[in-house]
Amino acid sequence: MFFASDNAGPVHPKIIEALAQANQGYALGYGNDPQMAQVRQQIRDLFEAPDAAVYLVATGTAANSLALATLCQPWQTVFCSPVAHIHEDECNAPEFYSGGAKLTLVGDQDKMTPDTLRQTILNEEVRGVHGPQRGPVSITQVTERGQVYTLDELHALTSVAQEFGLPVFMDGARFANALDALGCSPADMTWKAGVDAVSFGGTKNGCMGVEAVILFDPAKAWEFELRRKRGAHLFSKHRYLSAQMLGYLADGLWLQTARAANATCTRLAEGLRELPGVALLYPPQANMIFADMPRALHQRLHDAGAVYYITRGTLAGDDPDELLTARFVCDWSLGADQVDAFLAAARD
Amino acid sequence: MFFASDNAGPVHPKIIEALAQANQGYALGYGNDPQMAQVRQQIRDLFEAPDAAVYLVATGTAANSLALATLCQPWQTVFCSPVAHIHEDECNAPEFYSGGAKLTLVGDQDKMTPDTLRQTILNEEVRGVHGPQRGPVSITQVTERGQVYTLDELHALTSVAQEFGLPVFMDGARFANALDALGCSPADMTWKAGVDAVSFGGTKNGCMGVEAVILFDPAKAWEFELRRKRGAHLFSKHRYLSAQMLGYLADGLWLQTARAANATCTRLAEGLRELPGVALLYPPQANMIFADMPRALHQRLHDAGAVYYITRGTLAGDDPDELLTARFVCDWSLGADQVDAFLAAARD
Amino acid sequence: MFFASDNAGPVHPKIIEALAQANQGYALGYGNDPQMAQVRQQIRDLFEAPDAAVYLVATGTAANSLALATLCQPWQTVFCSPVAHIHEDECNAPEFYSGGAKLTLVGDQDKMTPDTLRQTILNEEVRGVHGPQRGPVSITQVTERGQVYTLDELHALTSVAQEFGLPVFMDGARFANALDALGCSPADMTWKAGVDAVSFGGTKNGCMGVEAVILFDPAKAWEFELRRKRGAHLFSKHRYLSAQMLGYLADGLWLQTARAANATCTRLAEGLRELPGVALLYPPQANMIFADMPRALHQRLHDAGAVYYITRGTLAGDDPDELLTARFVCDWSLGADQVDAFLAAARD
Amino acid sequence: MFFASDNAGPVHPKIIEALAQANQGYALGYGNDPQMAQVRQQIRDLFEAPDAAVYLVATGTAANSLALATLCQPWQTVFCSPVAHIHEDECNAPEFYSGGAKLTLVGDQDKMTPDTLRQTILNEEVRGVHGPQRGPVSITQVTERGQVYTLDELHALTSVAQEFGLPVFMDGARFANALDALGCSPADMTWKAGVDAVSFGGTKNGCMGVEAVILFDPAKAWEFELRRKRGAHLFSKHRYLSAQMLGYLADGLWLQTARAANATCTRLAEGLRELPGVALLYPPQANMIFADMPRALHQRLHDAGAVYYITRGTLAGDDPDELLTARFVCDWSLGADQVDAFLAAARD
Repeated sequence: MFFASDNAGPVHPKIIEALAQANQGYALGYGNDPQMAQVRQQIRDLFEAPDAAVYLVATGTAANSLALATLCQPWQTVFCSPVAHIHEDECNAPEFYSGGAKLTLVGDQDKMTPDTLRQTILNEEVRGVHGPQRGPVSITQVTERGQVYTLDELHALTSVAQEFGLPVFMDGARFANALDALGCSPADMTWKAGVDAVSFGGTKNGCMGVEAVILFDPAKAWEFELRRKRGAHLFSKHRYLSAQMLGYLADGLWLQTARAANATCTRLAEGLRELPGVALLYPPQANMIFADMPRALHQRLHDAGAVYYITRGTLAGDDPDELLTARFVCDWSLGADQVDAFLAAARD
Repeated sequence: MFFASDNAGPVHPKIIEALAQANQGYALGYGNDPQMAQVRQQIRDLFEAPDAAVYLVATGTAANSLALATLCQPWQTVFCSPVAHIHEDECNAPEFYSGGAKLTLVGDQDKMTPDTLRQTILNEEVRGVHGPQRGPVSITQVTERGQVYTLDELHALTSVAQEFGLPVFMDGARFANALDALGCSPADMTWKAGVDAVSFGGTKNGCMGVEAVILFDPAKAWEFELRRKRGAHLFSKHRYLSAQMLGYLADGLWLQTARAANATCTRLAEGLRELPGVALLYPPQANMIFADMPRALHQRLHDAGAVYYITRGTLAGDDPDELLTARFVCDWSLGADQVDAFLAAARD
Repeated sequence: MFFASDNAGPVHPKIIEALAQANQGYALGYGNDPQMAQVRQQIRDLFEAPDAAVYLVATGTAANSLALATLCQPWQTVFCSPVAHIHEDECNAPEFYSGGAKLTLVGDQDKMTPDTLRQTILNEEVRGVHGPQRGPVSITQVTERGQVYTLDELHALTSVAQEFGLPVFMDGARFANALDALGCSPADMTWKAGVDAVSFGGTKNGCMGVEAVILFDPAKAWEFELRRKRGAHLFSKHRYLSAQMLGYLADGLWLQTARAANATCTRLAEGLRELPGVALLYPPQANMIFADMPRALHQRLHDAGAVYYITRGTLAGDDPDELLTARFVCDWSLGADQVDAFLAAARD
Repeated sequence: MFFASDNAGPVHPKIIEALAQANQGYALGYGNDPQMAQVRQQIRDLFEAPDAAVYLVATGTAANSLALATLCQPWQTVFCSPVAHIHEDECNAPEFYSGGAKLTLVGDQDKMTPDTLRQTILNEEVRGVHGPQRGPVSITQVTERGQVYTLDELHALTSVAQEFGLPVFMDGARFANALDALGCSPADMTWKAGVDAVSFGGTKNGCMGVEAVILFDPAKAWEFELRRKRGAHLFSKHRYLSAQMLGYLADGLWLQTARAANATCTRLAEGLRELPGVALLYPPQANMIFADMPRALHQRLHDAGAVYYITRGTLAGDDPDELLTARFVCDWSLGADQVDAFLAAARD
């Protein structure tokens, strides 16, 4: 009953297998391994983007920070949601990698809207050289609150960015979960929707630690390579990043694991909905949900061994009816039995 | 016959096994995995340093850059050899992580001497606020030319640093190879020799991608953690870094692989020495050697399938007798048969 | 009728005189001029701070950025008002000088309150190593909307900062105007009110270009000096900064010019208040006011030659009654006659 | 008898006069003053560069750092002399402004030669993504040892840079002194000689604190403006920078003061040459010379009140005959009588 995060589960056996399979003989380091050539081709095919530049790094923060730094000048500002991972959970990594750019928060929700985005962009850079200059728009898909932008919503946001000539980055740490939710193609959700660069996350979806960064316009490919090296994110034994990604891509494993996680989460959401006193905060759309639940219920679940984060309030407290907000994230590996056990504990 | 680098060989099966073993159930991320607690304790024991702060990252450049940045202010300069990896091969990563510190080159050899170090330190910071301020001394052990500082040499260098109140960092990408060469204890080669922080490399010695950074004075431990996170080097699925390190430490695997690589390299050096027209440039002491060899010999070896870097000169050229310099690095996995095959090809 | 800014007026004749007087013979550069010794002593006396470190720079942005960078680590965030000059008008200079720190906005007004400040601080750093760490609180006095924090308000804000162990910086670009408004001593408004470092602005109040930075705790004095030099803000012919400051301090010139500017602004505010259709947005407290005025009135004033910024709306437009917001700033040199002429034009 | 530096003398009366003259009424700040339009035009005319972007800053370090940062990426290295001011005397300001670029030292003299430059460039960037990438070449004219590159020498150096597609920056802190020495036009010594950007120094030559940065290719003009603002070097009361520069340019004052300083220095050099035991280290070409002189002579001069730096050795010591190296710099304001008094004291 581990719902704390999708980075806490095991690596998918097929990824482990792919690592073992790559572990033969000698291979040039630093991205010159033959496996990387395959990765590059497969990702270009998958995204219908024959010219895209494709790179691998080991952490989501590296993917986000390196991609944003490539799109952003130090005197610019990145437009993002106030709950964006890049703003709240990366200890200023985007500021570090960009050389001191700013992040400007759009609206007060996890999902930006075209109106809040346009208004925020308009508010910046009305002071010539004095204010921060307008920089890239960063969209998290799935959002940090578990919601998925529809293709229409994406188009509307990127249209606003294009009005102002701003590039668009998609933080796809949970790319596969979003894609499964939308049922569209990777191209539909990215460059066809106006996205210039995307991170294609593997770590939260069954890999050990690998994320692809895809630049649909390869003009800055070499700059990205230099930034990756300078950031100490170019792996010498790179083939083991490649191998993970190959295992992830093979036979659509990446979509299967995401589908499993989403389905588990749906099962959990449906179960929670039926519980008295429980209110879901956002429409469940992928593998993460938030719910208000009475303290007594939280206590019972924790006593039963359930693990998850309480994001508002604290178990310590007297009032058993006080509502505390919980975040539940379903890892690819969580079985329906875990959900059922959890719901059973909740109902006791 | 692959002598190009010790980052090109396979991962040791026991490391792969350790990864598979760690791949069970759920574990908290970001270094809070139970395996990391074991790693910390084992490294403290190994280094006889019960208070040391111990962290894992995935690349050697990350280990070097984060450790140096923790020891160095942006207005200071790092004293290092002119062929130091941090100077020549990290695309300005130390400058990036330190926020713009300088590197000041000591002498014109791979090994610094107390005299060249003292003189170089004296030459800096004679201009008050105007010049770069004196910062840490960085020592690579094994050096980038395959040489090993003796304990006496280390003591002499760190004594100079201490005269000026400067901290000492040891780039231990090939720590195990040096330790095997010296036959001393990890404590002897580090804090007992005046070293304040060290990277304990795993990647070049049989791991997939893991380096420990050890701060003997834990005063800056939290700062290091923040720098690691901000640098995007904190792994969410951290247990797979821990697992590699556990496998590496278990039953002294790390010393066995280094010993094997050093022995292979000695065999290679001895064979090369007997070849006419071949001159070794440095006394072979660990798992890397440099040799001047006639172009015709290089050509024959390349035709036979040997892989290694020519670091001075180029195969293209007419004169068969012109001496080109080669670098040979022996991976832990290289067998004596590979060396013998190479030497046989050379003798043909 | 120039109300656009207090950086657009002439330098006070006594400052010019002080420059001419300093222009004799030779003096050591880089802050070693004898005038600087006088400046240091006079400012320590004025602030009743015998140990304070005192430095001069030429721009307000340099004063703010260098002081904040000295108080802030790159992984921290600065708490400030959403209209703070450091956030809106310095093109990411604080981010640059701090090495990539973040700015976290407090509340939605120019004046922070203890409640909004405490809540904002509480919201940060609940995520351990992941979120930005709490850093200094920056208070602008006079605020960017022309308001002055009372001593009680200052004490209340700095108490919140102290609860969390955070240092407090005061952006005193209009320090003298605030002091005149409060009628207290410089010590009262700074270290006695819990302020750790302050910029004491001269440029907007009759000088050519000089700001003092005062660190009440001199522990980081040398670091500040190195940051100033590294930022290229250490003047070689430093005596001309010192001379400006000496002229500014002599016979309380700095308070006289601020008093004059404040009085002019009061006269303007009183006149505007009597005009039909005009509404002042904030209580006028120093030398800057904001007013909503109908477009037709703006047009008449502009036709009459008045110069000021319209900060919301634009002259272009059809509706003569639409309210546009204006900002009026009174320079020390503006005479009552200018105000009267302006009001006369407004009344026509 | 003040020979310590050309930043220690008074400001030329005509510059003071120009400041007083500019001190009338109101002017828009931040470079929008009408004086700046005149400066821009006059400098374009002077350099025969009608499209050049022209900016003013207050310190030489700011001019160098901002210009280099505009020409250099953070992963590149700047090629410069080992005694370059940017390397030795700016406390890592170029590293700070460039976001962590490196400086690679060319040869072991103050003057780079085409051969040392080409060899140094060839040595860099032979390691693909791993090494620092080749960046701009920085030439100091007058060099830090008082020597002047001839036009032929400049052409030869910039040709090497062009071979590799590298931009060339000229640190012209003593531009006027060099121009007087060469007797050529500003265009001859800059863009016609292959220089892409130059700082045109005023501070060391009679101004209070002003340097022009001239970008012959205006493509990066806006970037420079943003960097200047972000670096806190955009003056609000900018007209006083403009006024200094206007006074400096008027009637060729800048060449007159440089000529005076050079002539004084020649007189000094000729006098020193005739003294027994004195050896000039470099051919005197502008307003700075270095000489080896016996300790006893130094002592006598210091006792007589002469002020200058001893750059090698120290007055403290027993041997009256030991040679200590002195640096003598002649300010524009130093009269022949000062030199004669100095030489008389030396001869006593």
